[in-house]
Amino acid sequence: MTGITVTAFRWVPDFARGLVRDLRVRWALEEAGIPYRQRLIGLDDQASEAYRRRQPFGQVPVYEEGMLTLFESGAIVLHIAERCEALLPADAAACARVRAWMFAALNTLEPPIQNLAEIDLFHAGEAWAAERRPQVEEAVKLRLSQLACWLHDREYLEGHFTAADLLMTSVLNILRHTDLVARVPALDAYRRNCEARPAYRKALADQLASFADQPG
Amino acid sequence: MTGITVTAFRWVPDFARGLVRDLRVRWALEEAGIPYRQRLIGLDDQASEAYRRRQPFGQVPVYEEGMLTLFESGAIVLHIAERCEALLPADAAACARVRAWMFAALNTLEPPIQNLAEIDLFHAGEAWAAERRPQVEEAVKLRLSQLACWLHDREYLEGHFTAADLLMTSVLNILRHTDLVARVPALDAYRRNCEARPAYRKALADQLASFADQPG
Repeated sequence: MTGITVTAFRWVPDFARGLVRDLRVRWALEEAGIPYRQRLIGLDDQASEAYRRRQPFGQVPVYEEGMLTLFESGAIVLHIAERCEALLPADAAACARVRAWMFAALNTLEPPIQNLAEIDLFHAGEAWAAERRPQVEEAVKLRLSQLACWLHDREYLEGHFTAADLLMTSVLNILRHTDLVARVPALDAYRRNCEARPAYRKALADQLASFADQPG
Repeated sequence: MTGITVTAFRWVPDFARGLVRDLRVRWALEEAGIPYRQRLIGLDDQASEAYRRRQPFGQVPVYEEGMLTLFESGAIVLHIAERCEALLPADAAACARVRAWMFAALNTLEPPIQNLAEIDLFHAGEAWAAERRPQVEEAVKLRLSQLACWLHDREYLEGHFTAADLLMTSVLNILRHTDLVARVPALDAYRRNCEARPAYRKALADQLASFADQPG
């Protein structure tokens, strides 16, 4: 196999450590048992033309494998999962169901959850945020209760642990500064179970170890 | 082929017509030349336990094909695109690139764009919205300018028209109540070009024709 390189940030503030999206890709690679190198970048790289050719929106991660360059952690996790039946079933119908949950994590759950985190982490002192926050929290609670309903008698979203659980847990973790997940027993147990996986612990440790103490 | 059924709303307000996400699935099916039936539902169906078993978040569309039930329009479009090389190249690397842009449309562009539409369509009179809107508009403009940069010398996101352009155009269309896309010539031309496709016109006409005049 051609060597794989995953681009990540050299430094992020504490509140972002353990949330930056290269973690999702590292986790998938650990589950699949695929080795990779990391390339650490800073703000200057992120804004450069050369980087924008690889990542049009200046985000991380970028995934490079021979001639293939990929961006968007959801697409990269899907690409990796296709080589690992533990992450994505080979059966076409089962695979389609897992992908439905992958999109649900990123397009139905993550937008309101990210909105709440943005208010709390970036706009806590602004007048609009106090008025808006309860509405956003209600939107988040609705999605969490619907997810808990589905997980009521299930250990995972679809059968065994898959790439959908990897993404869903990563999205739920954006709420770690609140008790919204902890207050829903089905979700709390689900999150803890997925995060207890050795592949997650290794991926998290590797992301945290990559950060410098100072910006630069 | 087993018959395909797509679930859509029996009625939505004017501002949502042409935006409800079954349109993305109808468009993909028209591009692929795959016939389907529609099943129209109302608010009561949406909240029912039977419907939640098929769509855990009570949204539309649901896609049914024999024993397979799918939700999340992104996942459904991907499922359809895999049967249609015009929508998704068979070459593995080219396919992975198109999927990266599909996720970019839904996870990088759509969240800020949806936030702006939500402010304008649901919260225009609220005090917080006046203070927050400029920040959200800036976030949208940043993503639009990055997308325009990529499209600068390209007709489509990757080579020919694909499922990524279908989703990206659908996301840009959420801004139709503003001039944000029209003000960027590269994006305006891109949107017009994709929306001129007969498959889009047919899908749009079919969605609009399905709506009743009154809620119920």
